[in-house]
Amino acid sequence: MTAAPYSFSARHIGPGLNDVRAMLATIGVPSVETLISQAVPKSIRLDRPLALPAPASEAEALAELSATMAKNTVLKSFIGAGYHGVHVPPVIQRNLFENPAWYTAYTPYQAEISQGRLEMLFNFQTLVTELTGLPVASASLLDEATAVAEAVGIALRHHRDKRTKVALAGTPHPQTLDVVRTRAEPLGIEVDGETIDDNTAALLVSWPDTFGVYGDHKAAIEKARAIGALVVFIADPLGLTLTDAPARLGADIAVGPMQRFGVPMGFGGPHAAYCAVSDRLTRLMPGRLVGQSTDSKGRPGYRLALQTREQHIRRDKATSNICTAQALLANMATAYAIWHGPAGLQAIAGRTHELANRLAAGLKAAGVSVLGASRFDTVTVEVKGRAGAIAAAAEETGRLLRVIDADHIGITFDETSTVADLDEIAPLFGAKAGAAAGSTMPGQPRGKEFLTQPVFHDNRSETDMMRFLRRLADKDLALDRAMIPLGSCTMKLNAAAEMMPVSWPDIANLHPFAPASHSAGYRAMIDELEGWLAEITGFDAVTLQPNAGSQGEYAGLLAIRAYHRSRGEGHRTVCLIPSSAHGTNPASAAMAGMNVVVVRCTEDGNIDVDDLKAKADEHAQDLAALMFTYPSTHGVFEEGARDICALIHSHGGQVYFDGANLNALVGLARPGDIGADVCHMNLHKTFCIPHGGGGPGVGPIGVKAHLKPYLPGHVTEGSGHAVSAAPFGSASILPITWMYIRMMGASGLKQATETAIISANYVATRLEAHFPVLYKGRHGRVAHECILDTRVLKDSAGISVDDIAKRLIDYGFHAPTMSFPVAGTLMVEPTESEPKSEVDRFCEAMIAISAEAAKVAKGEWPLADNPLVNAPHTAAEALAGQWTHPYSRLEAAYPAGDADTSAKYWPPVSRIDNVAGDRNLVCSCPPLSEYLGAAE
Amino acid sequence: MTAAPYSFSARHIGPGLNDVRAMLATIGVPSVETLISQAVPKSIRLDRPLALPAPASEAEALAELSATMAKNTVLKSFIGAGYHGVHVPPVIQRNLFENPAWYTAYTPYQAEISQGRLEMLFNFQTLVTELTGLPVASASLLDEATAVAEAVGIALRHHRDKRTKVALAGTPHPQTLDVVRTRAEPLGIEVDGETIDDNTAALLVSWPDTFGVYGDHKAAIEKARAIGALVVFIADPLGLTLTDAPARLGADIAVGPMQRFGVPMGFGGPHAAYCAVSDRLTRLMPGRLVGQSTDSKGRPGYRLALQTREQHIRRDKATSNICTAQALLANMATAYAIWHGPAGLQAIAGRTHELANRLAAGLKAAGVSVLGASRFDTVTVEVKGRAGAIAAAAEETGRLLRVIDADHIGITFDETSTVADLDEIAPLFGAKAGAAAGSTMPGQPRGKEFLTQPVFHDNRSETDMMRFLRRLADKDLALDRAMIPLGSCTMKLNAAAEMMPVSWPDIANLHPFAPASHSAGYRAMIDELEGWLAEITGFDAVTLQPNAGSQGEYAGLLAIRAYHRSRGEGHRTVCLIPSSAHGTNPASAAMAGMNVVVVRCTEDGNIDVDDLKAKADEHAQDLAALMFTYPSTHGVFEEGARDICALIHSHGGQVYFDGANLNALVGLARPGDIGADVCHMNLHKTFCIPHGGGGPGVGPIGVKAHLKPYLPGHVTEGSGHAVSAAPFGSASILPITWMYIRMMGASGLKQATETAIISANYVATRLEAHFPVLYKGRHGRVAHECILDTRVLKDSAGISVDDIAKRLIDYGFHAPTMSFPVAGTLMVEPTESEPKSEVDRFCEAMIAISAEAAKVAKGEWPLADNPLVNAPHTAAEALAGQWTHPYSRLEAAYPAGDADTSAKYWPPVSRIDNVAGDRNLVCSCPPLSEYLGAAE
Repeated sequence: MTAAPYSFSARHIGPGLNDVRAMLATIGVPSVETLISQAVPKSIRLDRPLALPAPASEAEALAELSATMAKNTVLKSFIGAGYHGVHVPPVIQRNLFENPAWYTAYTPYQAEISQGRLEMLFNFQTLVTELTGLPVASASLLDEATAVAEAVGIALRHHRDKRTKVALAGTPHPQTLDVVRTRAEPLGIEVDGETIDDNTAALLVSWPDTFGVYGDHKAAIEKARAIGALVVFIADPLGLTLTDAPARLGADIAVGPMQRFGVPMGFGGPHAAYCAVSDRLTRLMPGRLVGQSTDSKGRPGYRLALQTREQHIRRDKATSNICTAQALLANMATAYAIWHGPAGLQAIAGRTHELANRLAAGLKAAGVSVLGASRFDTVTVEVKGRAGAIAAAAEETGRLLRVIDADHIGITFDETSTVADLDEIAPLFGAKAGAAAGSTMPGQPRGKEFLTQPVFHDNRSETDMMRFLRRLADKDLALDRAMIPLGSCTMKLNAAAEMMPVSWPDIANLHPFAPASHSAGYRAMIDELEGWLAEITGFDAVTLQPNAGSQGEYAGLLAIRAYHRSRGEGHRTVCLIPSSAHGTNPASAAMAGMNVVVVRCTEDGNIDVDDLKAKADEHAQDLAALMFTYPSTHGVFEEGARDICALIHSHGGQVYFDGANLNALVGLARPGDIGADVCHMNLHKTFCIPHGGGGPGVGPIGVKAHLKPYLPGHVTEGSGHAVSAAPFGSASILPITWMYIRMMGASGLKQATETAIISANYVATRLEAHFPVLYKGRHGRVAHECILDTRVLKDSAGISVDDIAKRLIDYGFHAPTMSFPVAGTLMVEPTESEPKSEVDRFCEAMIAISAEAAKVAKGEWPLADNPLVNAPHTAAEALAGQWTHPYSRLEAAYPAGDADTSAKYWPPVSRIDNVAGDRNLVCSCPPLSEYLGAAE
Repeated sequence: MTAAPYSFSARHIGPGLNDVRAMLATIGVPSVETLISQAVPKSIRLDRPLALPAPASEAEALAELSATMAKNTVLKSFIGAGYHGVHVPPVIQRNLFENPAWYTAYTPYQAEISQGRLEMLFNFQTLVTELTGLPVASASLLDEATAVAEAVGIALRHHRDKRTKVALAGTPHPQTLDVVRTRAEPLGIEVDGETIDDNTAALLVSWPDTFGVYGDHKAAIEKARAIGALVVFIADPLGLTLTDAPARLGADIAVGPMQRFGVPMGFGGPHAAYCAVSDRLTRLMPGRLVGQSTDSKGRPGYRLALQTREQHIRRDKATSNICTAQALLANMATAYAIWHGPAGLQAIAGRTHELANRLAAGLKAAGVSVLGASRFDTVTVEVKGRAGAIAAAAEETGRLLRVIDADHIGITFDETSTVADLDEIAPLFGAKAGAAAGSTMPGQPRGKEFLTQPVFHDNRSETDMMRFLRRLADKDLALDRAMIPLGSCTMKLNAAAEMMPVSWPDIANLHPFAPASHSAGYRAMIDELEGWLAEITGFDAVTLQPNAGSQGEYAGLLAIRAYHRSRGEGHRTVCLIPSSAHGTNPASAAMAGMNVVVVRCTEDGNIDVDDLKAKADEHAQDLAALMFTYPSTHGVFEEGARDICALIHSHGGQVYFDGANLNALVGLARPGDIGADVCHMNLHKTFCIPHGGGGPGVGPIGVKAHLKPYLPGHVTEGSGHAVSAAPFGSASILPITWMYIRMMGASGLKQATETAIISANYVATRLEAHFPVLYKGRHGRVAHECILDTRVLKDSAGISVDDIAKRLIDYGFHAPTMSFPVAGTLMVEPTESEPKSEVDRFCEAMIAISAEAAKVAKGEWPLADNPLVNAPHTAAEALAGQWTHPYSRLEAAYPAGDADTSAKYWPPVSRIDNVAGDRNLVCSCPPLSEYLGAAE
């Protein structure tokens, strides 16, 4: 039968057949296979096609996934335990969540083209500081459980790792406690009980506890503060709209999940967690922080602040291995708060609270015993052995209650709950709903004076909100407008067919702790996906739980650690890491309780095998692992990968593969075949999950059979030692990767990898006359990315890599990766999805920039006044009354002489001053009262 | 129980309570009720709330509609008959169909801010000319059936209404024939048989016929041409990718439905029909035509061409009453063709053809009789009395076949059909699928030389396509970025919650001729909606069939005509129409066989009651109807509306209410109560269906009980005299209106109307010091819009209304309605959805423009060189090397001194020259070969 002419892979891959032919001709090779054989060492090549299902069309894959997901049973959830039903406001769903201008954006490292999402994340931080009363909030963490673990990390660093105990005030959710203990154990930290003494680093206050109860923890908090332990509130943010800010109750840190701010449960994620701290803890805080600074004209502008805390600078001394955020979900939650405003949030919270109180009152009136007196949304009922029977009866009515144990049932209300629910639930306990009565929230009512900032008041009509979201999106340059040639970040197409399922109700609205039979569809999809990823990487088992690459690294190292311990070799704690490795590697190793030993690299960016041998020899007795990025961080396939793995194994060590560059391997070679024992994959790089403007990420790991017993489990799955709050991490976005693999098939995936390598070598060939290409393989080829040495322009014309990056904005491009892994360079990764025309446009921009620098070198333009050092140019500057520059306005703004001047991307700010922002840290918007105060 | 604080109506309505208070203060009235009582005559006020369900929240309404629509049974359709299953490419669904930048745009009358959708419609026209071989194509018609009727209209006009017969070559689809006959009958045209004689105006060639057969019509075509009858091909556009263009076969006109180019069936619509003609018929062609022209700098630019043909100029002599197109759907179809390209379209067509041929071959091999030898996608089978049984058996397999009559079954394949379908269908007839064999298409194979224009080749990768759609969208200014203050067009919010259901599978994928029981959900929704609209307008029955306002007018006049005839008063053919009426009114009356008599208007824009009395008296014997726009086209509630209706009734006439301005009435007054017998409503104005960049529209009518028997029926519903191809018209977008009414409730709708009136009076009050406000009611108030007399600037400074409209683009606004109903004025309708801040921004822009004109008047700026006459300013001009104007670059581009210069809308072209474009008409892109030829 005739097939449709264009397979999905032909849509995903940018260059067509003629384009590829032209690119190969430029590179100077006769065929794809010739280039691949030059770039990829024969010793590692896979000699068979991947065993994957034949590629499906978009419609076929959607139909298949839909049929699978129809096997889920999506009842109305009253389970709570950190996950709540929500109404996603349609204006936000359509204009933010489903809008490629928001979801295809990269992490906002290039501040000038990221003002929209930076402004939204700044609003997120403001929201969190208002709710918690603490002065500094980060731009989100991964989930409640890891956020609590990170808070413990702050406390440990605060005490310079000299205290070893964490105390509890109220019982956290089981998954939270499990993750905290997983993280504490390798560091020798004890998380237990209520005893507070001089060795207590932190007191974790569950606000409310897992039973929904706000306990009286005043004494414990006072004691903790007296002995200098940090007080960490784990606080429900919706509950906080009705009661005191934790800072008023003694909190040094507050964390919690923002999921119920309009982000669907999605069988566990993704959603954003919040983290706020007191001033003195600012520089210990993990993750990203957006700060306000100024641009070169003195206008306010946002950018990421205090990056000095992070792994790429501090490596194994970093505050955390976290190097992403949940930007898209934090932005959704912020949009939700902006949409509803303080009065709306309080109304939603008040209604939820009233339902819980009416149930509690009704149960008490019927003589049923209910835990605690002070609650927000949850009623925990004592049912003496009848929990299972009652939950089953509730299921008959289409509702899921939480079976805590045989004697206790939890019922948690949320914004989707109705009086009808109340009237159906109360009779299950032989009661009827009580009448509305007063608040049972703890402490003082919140009052009206919070979230007074204008943004939380100006967007109450949908017309306003729609335009607000568009205006912010338009400030940013994302994949929907231009190539983002970021080396090591693989900014490829996020196809619409891959994205659409994420909004499906049977994917979006399932609670992660619903009975296993209810997630049959999810589990079938996850099983398939794990199998495919195992086949692609050459491993025996895969876990999808880690919800960021850093979490995957950490889970992989934990598995290696547990394996050594299981063999009585717990003393193996040395982790060898090449000097070129991404900073997350040493940070993760430190968190896993390992000691980092750095291995040198050769001048051409490869591991110095002699040094590796020497170090491996030296630490043979206590060698735990080598962390190995392949192809290398320098974008090259090293020849001796198999030998390196064998060397480590010969010393009893395990090989951890960093899969950051997996986009150069898929279909051509498999880490498992090369000798790796563990490998993490970034589903948000190689496997099409969008970067979301700075998260979510998903970082599964594959392991060989001997490590499988040491993969993370989950309390709700009958095991434990989880690394994420939900059993399958960010489950709701896994369908993106499922769709991608299902539509590409083995042939499409291999062709994508080949095309990525062709494109990178094409860029290298076109640009090497202008910028030396650093680091090539034995045959003079790069892998899927190439490093352009821009120091030539520094030498000749004083033009820095920064100047080039900012000037690219005038040309309508996001800059490539700057100064990583080598200072003064740009690392370019075109990916397979970029059409040749766009790759050419980029090459021509780089060549034009080189010519501009030549004018500076020749003295035609002064060093201090040329379009490079002045870049990027805003419209305000380009139209200014006086034009004093030696180049023209059109050269400033339209250097490529664009035919359609209306299509230009105009940056909202000129170059942002990073140093000024860090010196004078502003990372949330003060309440309106401060403006009024200042004006008086 | 506490409710959520913000109802949907609070989200839909732009101004909040404080805003309304401030607006009332500016107007100078103490309360909403005071203003309303001043604006709306007491005599027409409704004294009770509308009887509608209590308002539902977004989530509640979506859940309710979802439950209703779940009652539909959506089987796989093989019914064909003009409606086909499609795969909507996800990249198009997400980035065009579900993107407010595309769907909230207005009709592209203001060319400079509409270049994106004009370019896409130009591509549509190119697509149609390529498929049909005819040189001129319009920017779409409403559906196949009305398009055929319009083609007949062209033929009639071509023959100056001197020929009265239409002949058939091959049987059209039943609904097509029915609509053509409905339309022919009032004009005394006979549509019948194959006889061709000197009285034959047109020959309709069904290509293929309703049985899927391409007959041999050479002789008939030759005969028709010989006697000067026009040859009209009704041709399936997908079939045309495999065979000769109709122009090569003698067609003067070709029409057909573009639905199968990636637009869902949606239970009948909306989708675009195409219409192409030979050169000599260009000026007779109905509907919109996009032409290429040049802007003031000589750059190419698109705009609507040849408007001299249309109703607003030619009134009852117009080419048609059609004044909309199906822009959004035409653009979807074009995007589909761009996405697939010629090879892709041929592959889809070829696969479809192969399935049909394999079925036909298999059936023949099994001795089953099949109609015809030449087919594309359809097999019609003779089954001798077993049609019902076979269709029932097919339904058991989840498939719908077409029961033509007891002896015939039709099976139509489409791009969603599979070999599995073939293998299930053949056995129903005791056969099995045949092997693939050669083409059975008629004539010459199409070959590869069509759609050679670059746009059909440059967007094969999804990355390219996504950016192409964004680039086009960004050229345009739609509601997602700014107010569109168009008088008489009611550009209000199209809320996301209203739009989302349109994409639901059980709304999108139902065939309009599926068995009635399969559309139980649709029918329940439609029943409810009809009831609500009847209550809102005060009528006894409503039909939703008319798929544009013009069609509603026409259906209403047909009902009046039929009513008079039923009473033996067929001689009543005089239709009174006020001189201020929209041109569609006389055009529709002419089509309904009525004679238009114009009634004068007074200086203040009201009907001249004396003249009305005189005309009614004069034509008392043959008075059919008065067409009455209320509030008036001048935006005023006339006091004597009830009296006017009574007067007409006293002379035996019927009152037709034009509901264009219904947004000023809903909840305050009801046309039915005032005395109207019929009223049409624009669901795309008052009831939130988006304008889609120039369609779709929906134009239901309400009637009093005595007219109910004369509402249009439909052949598939056991009746006939339809005005649209599908029984419920554009059924798939009716949920938008359903959602709106369901969420607003009676109180919200009334408040919306009040706010629209407040906002219009606020604009009038703020601006009347600068621009006289024409036409007010007795108490000095306007209704929901106001007319600003800009001739003051013409007199003082030579600044035309055009200059003001174009200058508003520099301020970031779409112009108000220009020179309607009074030349040299702007009619402003803010609607209730615009926030006060945006209304203020508009008022400030108008005031600033007045000040700019004052500078010209004072001679500070020359008449020939000032920012008004030079507007709009493109970025290319604003940045030009030489700046020779007496105002600054910033004054040119940022006249309001915008703080955020990146948020500016830049027009892609400067002022478009309309005359040049009409003089040298270019309305499709020539094939690549012509460029090559020219270059040689």
